[in-house]
Amino acid sequence: MRGSAFFQRAFRVSQEHPTFFKLLIVTTVSGGGLLTFSDASPFQRSITGASSQNEGKKKKVVVLGTGWAGTSFLKNLKSSSYDVQVVSPNNFFAFTPLLPSVTNGTVEARSIVEPIRNIVKKKPYNVEFEEAECYKIDPVNKKVYCRSNQSSTLDGIEEFTVDYDVLILAMGARVNTFNTPGVEEHAHFLKEVGDAQKLRKSIIDCYERASLPGVSEEEKKRMMHFVVVGGGPTGVEYAAELHDLAFDDMAKLYPSAKDYLKITLLEAGDHILNMFDKRIITFATDKFQRDGIDVKTGSMVVRVSDKDISTKERTTGEIVSVPYGVVLWSTGIATRPVVRDFMNHIGQAKRRVLATDEWLRVEGCEDVYALGDCATINQRKVMEDIAAIFKKADKTSNGTLDLKDFKEVVGHICERYPQVELYLRKNKLKSFYDLLKNAKGDDKKQIDIETFKKALSEVDSQMKSLPPTAQVAAQQGEYLAKCFNRMELCEKNPEGPLRFRASGRHRFHPFRYRHFGQFAPLGGEQTAAQLPGDWVSIGHSTQWLWYSVYASKLVSWRTRMLVISDWSRRFIFGRDSSKI
Amino acid sequence: MRGSAFFQRAFRVSQEHPTFFKLLIVTTVSGGGLLTFSDASPFQRSITGASSQNEGKKKKVVVLGTGWAGTSFLKNLKSSSYDVQVVSPNNFFAFTPLLPSVTNGTVEARSIVEPIRNIVKKKPYNVEFEEAECYKIDPVNKKVYCRSNQSSTLDGIEEFTVDYDVLILAMGARVNTFNTPGVEEHAHFLKEVGDAQKLRKSIIDCYERASLPGVSEEEKKRMMHFVVVGGGPTGVEYAAELHDLAFDDMAKLYPSAKDYLKITLLEAGDHILNMFDKRIITFATDKFQRDGIDVKTGSMVVRVSDKDISTKERTTGEIVSVPYGVVLWSTGIATRPVVRDFMNHIGQAKRRVLATDEWLRVEGCEDVYALGDCATINQRKVMEDIAAIFKKADKTSNGTLDLKDFKEVVGHICERYPQVELYLRKNKLKSFYDLLKNAKGDDKKQIDIETFKKALSEVDSQMKSLPPTAQVAAQQGEYLAKCFNRMELCEKNPEGPLRFRASGRHRFHPFRYRHFGQFAPLGGEQTAAQLPGDWVSIGHSTQWLWYSVYASKLVSWRTRMLVISDWSRRFIFGRDSSKI
Repeated sequence: MRGSAFFQRAFRVSQEHPTFFKLLIVTTVSGGGLLTFSDASPFQRSITGASSQNEGKKKKVVVLGTGWAGTSFLKNLKSSSYDVQVVSPNNFFAFTPLLPSVTNGTVEARSIVEPIRNIVKKKPYNVEFEEAECYKIDPVNKKVYCRSNQSSTLDGIEEFTVDYDVLILAMGARVNTFNTPGVEEHAHFLKEVGDAQKLRKSIIDCYERASLPGVSEEEKKRMMHFVVVGGGPTGVEYAAELHDLAFDDMAKLYPSAKDYLKITLLEAGDHILNMFDKRIITFATDKFQRDGIDVKTGSMVVRVSDKDISTKERTTGEIVSVPYGVVLWSTGIATRPVVRDFMNHIGQAKRRVLATDEWLRVEGCEDVYALGDCATINQRKVMEDIAAIFKKADKTSNGTLDLKDFKEVVGHICERYPQVELYLRKNKLKSFYDLLKNAKGDDKKQIDIETFKKALSEVDSQMKSLPPTAQVAAQQGEYLAKCFNRMELCEKNPEGPLRFRASGRHRFHPFRYRHFGQFAPLGGEQTAAQLPGDWVSIGHSTQWLWYSVYASKLVSWRTRMLVISDWSRRFIFGRDSSKI
Repeated sequence: MRGSAFFQRAFRVSQEHPTFFKLLIVTTVSGGGLLTFSDASPFQRSITGASSQNEGKKKKVVVLGTGWAGTSFLKNLKSSSYDVQVVSPNNFFAFTPLLPSVTNGTVEARSIVEPIRNIVKKKPYNVEFEEAECYKIDPVNKKVYCRSNQSSTLDGIEEFTVDYDVLILAMGARVNTFNTPGVEEHAHFLKEVGDAQKLRKSIIDCYERASLPGVSEEEKKRMMHFVVVGGGPTGVEYAAELHDLAFDDMAKLYPSAKDYLKITLLEAGDHILNMFDKRIITFATDKFQRDGIDVKTGSMVVRVSDKDISTKERTTGEIVSVPYGVVLWSTGIATRPVVRDFMNHIGQAKRRVLATDEWLRVEGCEDVYALGDCATINQRKVMEDIAAIFKKADKTSNGTLDLKDFKEVVGHICERYPQVELYLRKNKLKSFYDLLKNAKGDDKKQIDIETFKKALSEVDSQMKSLPPTAQVAAQQGEYLAKCFNRMELCEKNPEGPLRFRASGRHRFHPFRYRHFGQFAPLGGEQTAAQLPGDWVSIGHSTQWLWYSVYASKLVSWRTRMLVISDWSRRFIFGRDSSKI
């Protein structure tokens, strides 16, 4: 091992890069510091080991899930005030945006995963990882029930419970089948690495099968008909990648099968990529048309059998059945059973998704946080709090406000209710004062509650819920980790906005999402990117932007190098066509 | 695709390297040219497309299997006189010597496989490949019955038959369980790429499971007990690689599990690597002792249950049961059911292995050849033919031979019966004449049949059957391809030895195996190599020899580059520990 030992030493160093997961653990102020704390600035740098000298029992933080949210939390948690225990059915973090590439043999499955153990092993302190699935959460006794997900080579199923002081739900979501019959049984998904590998195998199987002797024409047609359901970024990217695989590589290997190949993209809405800019939609639609990818909008899948997929055309209302070889189902997400069950226990039975406040605390349940796809932030309406806000602003309690009173609360209102800023921006208003000016026709200095209400009445229309993307999950994980890092500090001097319904200030700033734009790879080395501020960029250059952004976002130097070398392999040798 | 297209073009060129599979197909002399031809020189270069100008129907050559033998045949077949159809359950060739590396994450599974389609696509002529398994051979009607081995994602099983003019059996062998109860159900094998992946997953599972809370001590001990059955090169290499994986990489990730780890190597014989030189055996045994790998010789496995493996100690005769986590079974090979069934049809029911003559023709069956592990060459004894040989040599038919008569047959005898040369070498005899001198006490010039018999009586003791290695399979594939390439040529002027029982000469030289030595990787970047001429080399340098030899032997430039880049990855980042 001499040679390798040398290299390994050399690279250990590079792996000690500061942005790498460090879970320092020391003691915290005893007493429910955590129970009361609320929020932290995602902007301010965290203070590592701020309280390493404190004594007492450490809080036990249990993290469920090692996806984007969970891993980003672990990566950014630098305070040593906690014992951390991670429970996840996968012993690795997977860089999910590259799953379509894995499916088409552009990238090795193993290149996009970073074993959690690699993260944990770099921590000098007590961090535990269990490869297991949480199947029940008991918020009353502060327990989670777990089950190891072992392969059949090991007999029996290991079950155990984990106690927590603080629980962090980051277990993501499941695919939403809308209870369409046959989807669970016959369709492929693209959420896990395993899914990508299965899907890949099925595609190659279809090619092999279609080239067997004695297979009828229509059977070949069926085999080679690949259907993608859902015109979101994933569906579109996969359809595009599949087209490239088929025409760049497979066509050379399976000349006979080529003539039967058909790729269909089904979208229930009016057009694909509907969260993207018009220009991108048009470009994508045109490109797919040129490529011969059959994009069917306004057609909703009603049933999937082992051989046929049936859709209902919105225009005509008729039901059409088409034979298929492989179906990929990528139509958004739904709540996991375990989370659903948890919601019933904490009085969120009526909600569609688990709700948290702006500080990511699960509503109706103490010491539980939820990040990423498994929850949404339940943004407060200004109108709900309008009276309280007015009261707080009205120092003199004379029922009217002058601008002086305002100065003190404006900033807090804007921070607490992000929709205000969105509203101002939308209506091209410079500041909150313009809002008031519009409200009171004249320019008398005093404003009463009615004028105030009138001024803000429209604001809530601008409330937006965050998209279920890796970007959001990662930012939430980072945000929460930094709250945890700076807890004692912010207990002493809170930095959040005013509490309108109580005295004092919130301890932390609420979570604020920063959108860095979104990619939609369209195949043929072309990508569309929608950047903040209505910027749009499409084409080969954008593909290279895509390469560089993804390379830089990869979770470790190891995965970064592996993926880049995979890309070069693919450039040189083309995609792999073996079933491995 | 501009960038990639450029690279691909560039590399297509390098892939057109002459040693790459080329199956040119043109027409052949109609009439059973093949039925009568026998053998070809493995040394002489083949003449490509020698008969491309001939007219008539092409012979249909069906190749079953794409392992070492089949692929090497396809690779070296350059004559254009045949239509070739390949049927194999795998759509790729796998470089099996690297399977242990795949199991331990040193090399990517995909890096050691070359899709057969990649081979076929480079052929301008009609070569077909079917991904299917042959389950019945009908030599009477010259048909093989095949079944597509599709994954469950595709309904039903495709069945079809393939007619052949010439059939080439290269389907390898199955693992020999010696009917030990429980092996099929509970043990792992290491013959296919899929085996390596399963085995890998099971090992990681054991580590994960052993680090779950609430797992009892002895359960952990059981989990972390890895047993390798069979002290051959594969078993030894795997045990060594597993040890490196455990101590170089896993130990850092699973510090707790380390203390329970135990690797046992069970060998029924007296020592491991028994086909190797004493020096290597001693070195390996010592190294394993230092490494803490528990080598148990003279202990035969009698039963494998889901948790325990029972062995019978030859010395004491007692039966011991030990709990285990994973068992790898690598104890040699046995005949596949389909081949066994075929043997019963052609009157080889009593034989253990399918028998061919020295020209690889299956005995008792026309137009069927068998290569690699699925057959053995049934070498003829000199003593069986002694009378015929004498008669042939005795030109004057006066019942005695003089040296002049000999000169003409000696060469033919030596070529036809390789054991003669081996015998001479073993007894340090310069030539055949010395053999005769010893036989006849005096030095009278005449030799009668009795003296002749006496002289050769010992020779047959030197007959050796070839080991079931990749090296033999590859050489047989190459040999047979060259026979096929040079068929018309050698029909006109045969080059083989005299036919002792008939007139004329054999058309081709019989197959002669050239041993290039054998490696036994022992872990810790050390390898033992046994080279021809009793050379032995052990240590780190040999490991590098191993790297270079294996790199050079890889079937395509693609796999070569991939494996080398995998090795570098492993040097830099260590082995991968994710379950992917």
